[in-house]
Amino acid sequence: MEDRFEISLLLDYYIDLLTEKQKDIMFMYYNDDFSLAEIAEINNTSRQAIHDLIKRCDKQLINYEEKLQLVEKSKIRKSKKNDLIKKLTNEYMLSKELVEDIDEMLDEIINS
Amino acid sequence: MEDRFEISLLLDYYIDLLTEKQKDIMFMYYNDDFSLAEIAEINNTSRQAIHDLIKRCDKQLINYEEKLQLVEKSKIRKSKKNDLIKKLTNEYMLSKELVEDIDEMLDEIINS
Repeated sequence: MEDRFEISLLLDYYIDLLTEKQKDIMFMYYNDDFSLAEIAEINNTSRQAIHDLIKRCDKQLINYEEKLQLVEKSKIRKSKKNDLIKKLTNEYMLSKELVEDIDEMLDEIINS
Repeated sequence: MEDRFEISLLLDYYIDLLTEKQKDIMFMYYNDDFSLAEIAEINNTSRQAIHDLIKRCDKQLINYEEKLQLVEKSKIRKSKKNDLIKKLTNEYMLSKELVEDIDEMLDEIINS
């Protein structure tokens, strides 16, 4: 299986592109930390079937990120936001309160 | 067919989720303004086949937007950015030059 942290992050962005069944199983595995055997029992299927489904979804999520780069773009936005905040503080010498206000509004912008 | 402007916008965000062949045909139709008959001739197929492919892609793009909302989110970011700029000008009374600088940096952030 792929790196758990990476896949959890990809799920945040691309979960809605999976089917309801895929969503449920990926959530159980990556968020709720169920074992393959437990998920198989709940879904009345084999451990191997669950393993294969998760591997297929992993690949799908990685493929979406390769194409749309939503995780990467979000990281870039965060890093540019931090640069801007530093600039406002150190170069433009804005007051701490004002910079904090702007920082908060910027978070709202980049997280929407 | 769907609204041309809407589909062109969706293509900006989701084009990479289409196959190479779909990309080519959608570009010819929506960006280069070729007619169905012209695209059919270039691709050595029928006008009806091109019509069906474009309709299928239209639906796919609309479906991606329903799920990921990238166009909608981008609009929200732009509108929030404009609110912030207004606030910096009218409420925080920052200088015109500084606001212009921040505006430029914000554009870079939301467009990345």
